[in-house]
Amino acid sequence: MTKPCIICVAITGSVPTKANNPAVPITVPEQIESTHEAFEAGASIAHCHVRDDEGKPTSDPERFARLKEGIEAHCPGMIVQLSTGGRSGAGAERGGMLPLRPEMASLSVGSNNFPTRVYENPPDLVDWLAAEMTKYDVTPEVEAFDLSHIHQAVARHKAGQLPGKLYVQFVMGVKNAMPVDRDVFDYYVRTMERLAPEAEWCAAGVGPGQIVVNEWAIAAGGHTRT
Amino acid sequence: MTKPCIICVAITGSVPTKANNPAVPITVPEQIESTHEAFEAGASIAHCHVRDDEGKPTSDPERFARLKEGIEAHCPGMIVQLSTGGRSGAGAERGGMLPLRPEMASLSVGSNNFPTRVYENPPDLVDWLAAEMTKYDVTPEVEAFDLSHIHQAVARHKAGQLPGKLYVQFVMGVKNAMPVDRDVFDYYVRTMERLAPEAEWCAAGVGPGQIVVNEWAIAAGGHTRT
Ligand SMILES: [Zn+2]
Ligand SMILES: [Zn+2]
Ligand SMILES: [Zn+2]
Ligand SMILES: [Zn+2]
Repeated sequence: MTKPCIICVAITGSVPTKANNPAVPITVPEQIESTHEAFEAGASIAHCHVRDDEGKPTSDPERFARLKEGIEAHCPGMIVQLSTGGRSGAGAERGGMLPLRPEMASLSVGSNNFPTRVYENPPDLVDWLAAEMTKYDVTPEVEAFDLSHIHQAVARHKAGQLPGKLYVQFVMGVKNAMPVDRDVFDYYVRTMERLAPEAEWCAAGVGPGQIVVNEWAIAAGGHTRT
Repeated sequence: MTKPCIICVAITGSVPTKANNPAVPITVPEQIESTHEAFEAGASIAHCHVRDDEGKPTSDPERFARLKEGIEAHCPGMIVQLSTGGRSGAGAERGGMLPLRPEMASLSVGSNNFPTRVYENPPDLVDWLAAEMTKYDVTPEVEAFDLSHIHQAVARHKAGQLPGKLYVQFVMGVKNAMPVDRDVFDYYVRTMERLAPEAEWCAAGVGPGQIVVNEWAIAAGGHTRT
C-alpha cells in the first residue's frame, strides 16, 4: 500500500474578499458548507480563518467556536485546524481560540517579510503560543516561510515545546519571502528527512504557485494544502 | 594562481561591551588603531559600527565620518563598509551615513528573529536603503540571515536595485535565526552558484561559530568576516 496523502483545505484565507471572488466563503454558515463540500471531495483537515461582520480577518474566539462546532457536526472525523496567523490579530489575541482545544492550530516559529510589511513572530510570542498549544493539547502545523523556520520547528519539537507529531508546512510564493523554487522545495524535503525523519510535512504555494507546489508535494510523498 | 580570500574585519559589533571584553574598541581612536592592526595583518574590508559616549550602538553619521576618515588615513586602500544594521537605529536613521559615500555598506533584505526580538527590515525600508546606496554609489554587502534573503538579494540585484557587484554574507549562529549547520552552508554555496555565479560571497558565524564558519568559507572558495 502506498502512503496516503492528507489534503488540508484552507477554505477562507485572510486576504481574499467577495469582491475578488464571489465564491469565497466569508460567513460561518458559508464556511461550514464549503468545508463540507471539500470534506466530501476528500479533504481531511480544515485550515480555518474567520472574518468579522465587515468581512475582515479576526481572531474572535466566539466565531472560531461556531465554525469548529459546525465543521464537527457536518464533517465527522475531519480535523479542525485553527489559524493563529498574524493577519488576523496581534500578540496574545492570536492564540485566544486555543482554549477551544482544536485538534490542530497553525504556528509560525520565525519572522519574515510579507509583500508590504514584516510578519512579526517574536520569540516570546512563539514561546507563549507553543505553551498554550501544549496546555490545550493542540498539535501545531508549523508554517515554514523560510529555511530557518524548519530548523526552529525541529529544535522546539526536540525540546518538547511542540505537542503531538511534528507537522511542518512549507509556504512558497509569498512576495518578499521564499519564492516558488523547485530546488528549494527539494532541499526542504531533504532537510525534513535529515533532521526529523519521523515528522510529516506538507507544502502550499500562494496564488499561481498553488497547483505547482501541490503537485511537487504529492509526487515527493508529502501532504498538500490548498 | 588561486583565488584570493578577502578578510573583512568587524572591529566593533553592536553588542559586546568593555565589560564583556576590555579589548573591544569602542571610541573612534580605538577603532582606528584596531582596524590598522587588522589591516597590517591582512584584512582588506573594515565592517564598521559606531558607539555613542555611553558605549551604546548608534547610527550617528558624524561618528561614522570620523571613523571612515581615520581608517582611510591609516589604512590606505582598505575598503570601508559601514553598517546599516538595525541594532544601531530604527527606520531611515539606519541609512543616515550613506551620504558619506563609503565604498560599501551592509544591507539586510529580509526580516528574521533575533535572540529576543524581531529583526525588522520591512520591504519599504529595504527599498529606500537600496535606493540611497544607488544614489551614493555604495556597494551593499547583503546580510543573509536565512535562505530567502539570498533569493531576495539576487532578485534585487537582477532588477538593478543593488549597485556594484553582488556580495552576499551568510550569517549563521544567531539564536532563533539560522544555526551553524554544515549542510545549510553547502546549500547556500550551491544556491549562490546556481542563481548568481558572477557574485561573491562570504560567511560569518556568531560567537563560538566564528572560527568554524570561517574555515568552511575559506575551504569552499568564499571570503571571510570576523
Ligand atoms: Zn492560514
Ligand atoms: Zn453540510
Ligand atoms: Zn595607526
Ligand atoms: Zn555588523
